[in-house]
Amino acid sequence: MFVTVEGVEGAGKSTLMGMLAAELERRKLSFVRTREPGGCGLGAKIRPLLLDVSSRVDSRAELFLFLADRAQHVAEVIRPALERGEWVLCDRYADSTIAYQGYGRGMDVERLQALNDDATGGLWPDRTLLLDLPVETGLARALARNGREGLSLSEGRFEAEALAFHERIREGFLARAARWPERFRVLDARLSPEELRAKALEALGL
Amino acid sequence: MFVTVEGVEGAGKSTLMGMLAAELERRKLSFVRTREPGGCGLGAKIRPLLLDVSSRVDSRAELFLFLADRAQHVAEVIRPALERGEWVLCDRYADSTIAYQGYGRGMDVERLQALNDDATGGLWPDRTLLLDLPVETGLARALARNGREGLSLSEGRFEAEALAFHERIREGFLARAARWPERFRVLDARLSPEELRAKALEALGL
Repeated sequence: MFVTVEGVEGAGKSTLMGMLAAELERRKLSFVRTREPGGCGLGAKIRPLLLDVSSRVDSRAELFLFLADRAQHVAEVIRPALERGEWVLCDRYADSTIAYQGYGRGMDVERLQALNDDATGGLWPDRTLLLDLPVETGLARALARNGREGLSLSEGRFEAEALAFHERIREGFLARAARWPERFRVLDARLSPEELRAKALEALGL
Repeated sequence: MFVTVEGVEGAGKSTLMGMLAAELERRKLSFVRTREPGGCGLGAKIRPLLLDVSSRVDSRAELFLFLADRAQHVAEVIRPALERGEWVLCDRYADSTIAYQGYGRGMDVERLQALNDDATGGLWPDRTLLLDLPVETGLARALARNGREGLSLSEGRFEAEALAFHERIREGFLARAARWPERFRVLDARLSPEELRAKALEALGL
């Protein structure tokens, strides 16, 4: 079973990934825990290009780097694991690209959908857990974790822009969940870890 | 004017690029001489990924890396030079990707055309000089330059496969030249450097 965890910054994806991995271990189920970008050898080399120089990288170039990473990750990590009959837990996948580049930055969503189909050879998750929460709450959490410098939210105007940007991303994720209700399960990220864990396991049929 | 030089290995692209650059200099015309992959800062970081680990990189991932390099190269180098009114001389461009990945490796040519349109924002050269020559001649030249290890053509079966592969690439380039006769000029790469130079300058209206 191919499971992805999605959501805006500060939604608690890593914590949920950790709880799911612990549960699969407890049940002695084989699984691969991975992430994008950077979940494979090539991706690990691409990731610093994406994160380090993001301000200078053309938005099209950035998109194609994400897609290169994803294509290699699918070919090298995800498909082989699924073919071995293992679970795959992946922190972010194509839905993130479409939410951030498409809904967030205004690239054409249908074009991004087609490009992701192309990069993945049509491989979409069996289940996507979307951690949803109000943007202010998520940014406040990310801010508490990374410090103010981490997000550069100190100036009023930028802060308002950042809020609007993340609001569009949140709405993008929710639009995707509404379009593929079979695949998506929307979880309220404000629940306690124990409640979230229970809802996530139920969503995975565990 | 945006000029690209294309052709199979050993066709003499670098020599022709050098002659064109010398002529533009002689005439005191401003120009940028560049190449793909690796013609910009990001591309220089991507190029080793493409060349170094080509055997382990998934073909889709490789394609998207080429496209990321091209998108950045267009945004950072080619478009700004054209906007300054300068000539751009580029050693390989989108036609190479389509000839090698499409005709050579069997990826869908129309899909590659659309992806390249996407990566370049629809920027195609004003003039493409295609250096054409029989595949055996080109491979023999490349072999003489790189040594037998350079091309790994020592075994008979691989040699036959390599010939067929490069034959498809040559035919791909010629098919593209036939499709866009306004843009392409096909030059016989077996001509003497002096004859080639004269034909190339004529093709550029110089």
